[in-house]
Amino acid sequence: MSVFTTVTPEDLSVWLKQFAVGELVALEGIASGIENTNYFVSTTQSEYVLTLFEKLQPDELPFYLELMDHLARHGLPCPGPVLSLDNRLFGELNGKPATLVSRLKGRSVMEPTVEHCAALGAVLAETHLVGQNYRGKMENPRGPNWWFSTAAQMVSHLDDAHSAVLHKELGHQSKLRFEHLPKGVIHADLFRDNALFDGDRVGGVIDFYFACTDVLLYDVAITVNDWCVTEDGDIDTKRCRALLSAYNRIRPFTAIEALAWITMLRAGALRFWLSRLYDMHCPRPGEMTQVKDPEHFYRVLTKHSARLPGDLWM
Amino acid sequence: MSVFTTVTPEDLSVWLKQFAVGELVALEGIASGIENTNYFVSTTQSEYVLTLFEKLQPDELPFYLELMDHLARHGLPCPGPVLSLDNRLFGELNGKPATLVSRLKGRSVMEPTVEHCAALGAVLAETHLVGQNYRGKMENPRGPNWWFSTAAQMVSHLDDAHSAVLHKELGHQSKLRFEHLPKGVIHADLFRDNALFDGDRVGGVIDFYFACTDVLLYDVAITVNDWCVTEDGDIDTKRCRALLSAYNRIRPFTAIEALAWITMLRAGALRFWLSRLYDMHCPRPGEMTQVKDPEHFYRVLTKHSARLPGDLWM
Repeated sequence: MSVFTTVTPEDLSVWLKQFAVGELVALEGIASGIENTNYFVSTTQSEYVLTLFEKLQPDELPFYLELMDHLARHGLPCPGPVLSLDNRLFGELNGKPATLVSRLKGRSVMEPTVEHCAALGAVLAETHLVGQNYRGKMENPRGPNWWFSTAAQMVSHLDDAHSAVLHKELGHQSKLRFEHLPKGVIHADLFRDNALFDGDRVGGVIDFYFACTDVLLYDVAITVNDWCVTEDGDIDTKRCRALLSAYNRIRPFTAIEALAWITMLRAGALRFWLSRLYDMHCPRPGEMTQVKDPEHFYRVLTKHSARLPGDLWM
Repeated sequence: MSVFTTVTPEDLSVWLKQFAVGELVALEGIASGIENTNYFVSTTQSEYVLTLFEKLQPDELPFYLELMDHLARHGLPCPGPVLSLDNRLFGELNGKPATLVSRLKGRSVMEPTVEHCAALGAVLAETHLVGQNYRGKMENPRGPNWWFSTAAQMVSHLDDAHSAVLHKELGHQSKLRFEHLPKGVIHADLFRDNALFDGDRVGGVIDFYFACTDVLLYDVAITVNDWCVTEDGDIDTKRCRALLSAYNRIRPFTAIEALAWITMLRAGALRFWLSRLYDMHCPRPGEMTQVKDPEHFYRVLTKHSARLPGDLWM
């Protein structure tokens, strides 16, 4: 249960008076979520999600909340922060920075079909397009510098085979330059639990708190690595092709992106292998609700590193 | 059928490329609406409403569209205009200014209950609160100056009894000053067909194209004159009290508003009596789809003018 900070109906009823959202009807903690406390909030007016930030600080929030506002106002299915009567995107509740966002329709799909992957690819491309005119900038805190420093910390926990794969991958990634790949705002964590499906449509893309400014294709790779992966860490080519083709209809890939594709898939697998290793070996007390298996992304990475340029492309 | 300007799926598919809303699936003209052309638009991504403005000019639109954006971002159930990829609130389609807005849930309720009136009163109060920090200003084009000039045009069409009521009412209204009544952005046309109910909740307040800066209580009066009226033009005191009480919980009325209530109800009835007389006697060719009966608001007005201060209050 990922409710780190308890909010009572009494607390919330008072807090909601700064919004034009009606009166509280029901409040329910949300079990998923690793970084923040989340509640479903029903009022006489509508349905919302309350988020209390457990780690992010007030000066870090505008990048994320203004991005969500920007995307929602452009018609994308992403939670729109509700402005308070005095026009603020967040306030403070029980000692934590807190925001109220619209609740979107739909449920996560844990066994996505080709159709789901196509719908998601289109929405990801739309998100990248709309992000092009978002002014906020945020360096990726899980970018190359973080890979190398985290790898240095993790290598003592690895056996020889894993250590060799890690060194080989860091060597591969360090040889490549990404200056010619289109960049912009990316979600950077668009796993299956961060999308809601309402029938065939993407009803919501949620949890933008890893969003940053980085290579767009890297975001596609992170997404494919989760949505199109099989249990043994391989990629289902049909789902992958559907996602890429739908994306490409909205934002056509450049020739350089086609060349960089396998490297980006490897980079995405490396990043999540490393963060899962870190979470397993350096757990932060009371923060982790479930440690995810690093070995899964080790398998994804080793399979990708055997692929040739042009593999898994449209 | 209020589709004055035809839009084909081919026209719209091209036009939608400037938005991040997916691809067109279906397009359906909306029969209601007197001033604009409206279509329901389904895309692969979501549901929208397309509005083509038949009379409003591009320089007049920002007040309305920025207001809807402001209200929607504050969590109110009102259509949010979808920003184009280059951040515009409206464009041009088939020679008319046009905007795409989110489609809200629910249906109009033609026989509202006490509960519907209470829910609507609360949302109207929230709208007035949120409107207090909206920067746009728009003089009411159907305010006192318009009453007097329109009355002068209409009086030749009236028999002696109606003419006497009109003169008496204009005399009454001209004696009163509204400086001490709270002002702000008002909807000014919140009739039953401009609200959608989703179960017990107000799913949407729509059609903000008569919105302006005026006395808040006047907006309440216009709303009560429609939502709480009986077929013979009388006011159902239970529905009226429910609407006022729910409003008062969100934005408490001032003492001066209590004193001005009957005069505001009379002003609201006068305004719609006059506009219906005008539409009947001075129809604009091809524009009116249905002429509404002016006599209804004549009856509402005459009943109000017999009421004493304190009548129909909470």
